[in-house]
Amino acid sequence: MAVNLNPPQAGQLPAIAGVELLVAEAGIKTPGRKDVLVVRLDKGNTVAGVFTRNRFCAAPVRLCQQHLAAGVQIRALVVNTGNANAGTGVDGHNRALAVCQAVAEQNQLQVEQVLPFSTGVILEPLPADKIIQALPTLRQADWAEAAQAIMTTDTIAKAASRTLEIDGKKISITGIAKGSGMIHPNMATMLGFVATDAAVTRPLLNQLVKEVADQSFNSITVDGDTSTNDSFILISTGKSEAALIDSVEQPAYLQLKQALLDVAIELAQAIVRDGEGATKFITVEVNGGRSVAECKDVAYAIARSPLVKTAFFASDPNLGRLLAAIGYAGVADLDVDRLSLYLDDVLVACDGGRHPDYREEQGQAVMNQSEITVRVELGRGAACAKVWTCDFSYEYVRINADYRS
Amino acid sequence: MAVNLNPPQAGQLPAIAGVELLVAEAGIKTPGRKDVLVVRLDKGNTVAGVFTRNRFCAAPVRLCQQHLAAGVQIRALVVNTGNANAGTGVDGHNRALAVCQAVAEQNQLQVEQVLPFSTGVILEPLPADKIIQALPTLRQADWAEAAQAIMTTDTIAKAASRTLEIDGKKISITGIAKGSGMIHPNMATMLGFVATDAAVTRPLLNQLVKEVADQSFNSITVDGDTSTNDSFILISTGKSEAALIDSVEQPAYLQLKQALLDVAIELAQAIVRDGEGATKFITVEVNGGRSVAECKDVAYAIARSPLVKTAFFASDPNLGRLLAAIGYAGVADLDVDRLSLYLDDVLVACDGGRHPDYREEQGQAVMNQSEITVRVELGRGAACAKVWTCDFSYEYVRINADYRS
Repeated sequence: MAVNLNPPQAGQLPAIAGVELLVAEAGIKTPGRKDVLVVRLDKGNTVAGVFTRNRFCAAPVRLCQQHLAAGVQIRALVVNTGNANAGTGVDGHNRALAVCQAVAEQNQLQVEQVLPFSTGVILEPLPADKIIQALPTLRQADWAEAAQAIMTTDTIAKAASRTLEIDGKKISITGIAKGSGMIHPNMATMLGFVATDAAVTRPLLNQLVKEVADQSFNSITVDGDTSTNDSFILISTGKSEAALIDSVEQPAYLQLKQALLDVAIELAQAIVRDGEGATKFITVEVNGGRSVAECKDVAYAIARSPLVKTAFFASDPNLGRLLAAIGYAGVADLDVDRLSLYLDDVLVACDGGRHPDYREEQGQAVMNQSEITVRVELGRGAACAKVWTCDFSYEYVRINADYRS
Repeated sequence: MAVNLNPPQAGQLPAIAGVELLVAEAGIKTPGRKDVLVVRLDKGNTVAGVFTRNRFCAAPVRLCQQHLAAGVQIRALVVNTGNANAGTGVDGHNRALAVCQAVAEQNQLQVEQVLPFSTGVILEPLPADKIIQALPTLRQADWAEAAQAIMTTDTIAKAASRTLEIDGKKISITGIAKGSGMIHPNMATMLGFVATDAAVTRPLLNQLVKEVADQSFNSITVDGDTSTNDSFILISTGKSEAALIDSVEQPAYLQLKQALLDVAIELAQAIVRDGEGATKFITVEVNGGRSVAECKDVAYAIARSPLVKTAFFASDPNLGRLLAAIGYAGVADLDVDRLSLYLDDVLVACDGGRHPDYREEQGQAVMNQSEITVRVELGRGAACAKVWTCDFSYEYVRINADYRS
């Protein structure tokens, strides 16, 4: 059902020097399925992350935050699917720690040098033994296989790459992500790992990971549910020949940031395109606001409205539902007579009502497409925001009603 | 599909002295269907109302607010279904005014003494002519017929009554409501009209309408969408023999408030029971919060989560989704290790995870019921809140994808 999304092809995903990928089948939930990914990082790297703000955040999320704060160099990531290790209390913490400990021993590291990630069902005890027993069976993998190893209800693996030149030196970026339900900012049920061989100082990488997440993974919604396990990790191995980036003033910083954004947005959009039951990919663009925050409020009011999303599913240009969502977005003193609403390039509403020249056939033609842009011009400022979402179908209900996911 | 909801029976709905009900078929959307209700009020009454906070509020909502503020006595309400007269700009205002003018002329009133209400499709011009032409065909009706006349996608008419004695004098309260989709506080797509023959001063009635709405119509959600037309009107005719209520200190005030609340809650719950596609009626009760606001935040996070609502539809005791929703409700410094989660009387989670004695069969038994209470004990204060919602089914998608409602 994914909307205009193709699986990644190994040849299109450059390896990142300093990053080694390994996968295994631990049989956590489904026998014979790749469900464990270990990422080994060479010395000299820098790692930064942002995590879910859900108060019920999972044990591995808390451990990641502790290990990143410990000041040691991160040398390995261990990811499992099939179990989220969330809502599992002290026992969940101990199990996540045991997995980190086993990876640390295998690689002669301290336990704080290992970051754990889990995704899958909540409230079930993590079968840590199965993961630990699978560690000796880990085998080398490429990025496409790594993307497969972190899938849960995803129907298509998600990966993206960019290469750029900084001062004549080639830089590569490759990333993978998973997620398709419980998708909403701060953050979606998603894991995202993006690595580059560029060299970036830790303070700058910490800043980059936040800025990039904000305009990518924090700008999507499938169902408005924020998950317990979301994590986005940025890895800089420093193995390219390009000079260290240590200031936001450097042109190289902006170049790298744009390329990282491109990768992260492609991954974030892939999550929406593969959204549970999705048949359409919707971009909601809000311009002319007084602040980015109010533009995001309007964009999310539209993007998470079940009435709007079922209208997209039905290809029904039901403009009233769009206007109602704008109206309840909570923007203070919004003057609805000054805003304009577009479906792609068709002006459908202004002056507080339907545009006099608008004909339903025009709206219908846009609604029939698989990719649609809703654009709102608030007419009260210079701020803007963009959010991506999908429609709401029978299939969404089936997936979430039939399966314990 | 409505959950444990029966149509009102005329004999159970006492007439309210000073209130005359009239209905007609104007053929606004469907020929032969009762789609216009006029409520005539005797002199000496008091009327108060609360309205949608949607910025795209409809022309009749704005007119209601103006007419209530004009300081004249309200003597008639005119309600139409089939068209919301929302998102219709200046033309919509003129059409709503024309309807009020015609009702005023018919009853020898000033135009400001008439309150207009519309519900139905948004963005279409109101066929004011049809309504005006139908006015001479109005005929007397009882409350049950009045409830039918304001239905849109409702499958069952909604009405409720209570009688009480104040100082030995009998007081009657009867109310009707409509709504089943685009239901969320501030307010749901709902119209509610509650009348009593008690005598209440205008300042007190203004306070009552807010307090009653807050604990009834503003405590329900079907799909999280707040509509453009929502209105709740409280009418006090003063025709009973009981003394005027003019102070919150009077015991009679609390007696009347409780009875009005009972009627309003029954009507609000009826809207949820008849929620589009509903197969289950869910009460979400949050106790032990630091403020009512944070309790409502948690209750609504649960009540509007599509993942939680599809799990209810599937009778799946998927506790992880409930915990995740509590976690992302935005409660500052929420300590998840201190909260408890119950399904009816079954303690399912505490200490940050599943309760050790909990067995899935227990949760399953509750989930199989058509009425379920989710109770969260936050363990950090004395505030509480209660919210009502329904599940999320295939039928919801079908209703909203197949029809322009």
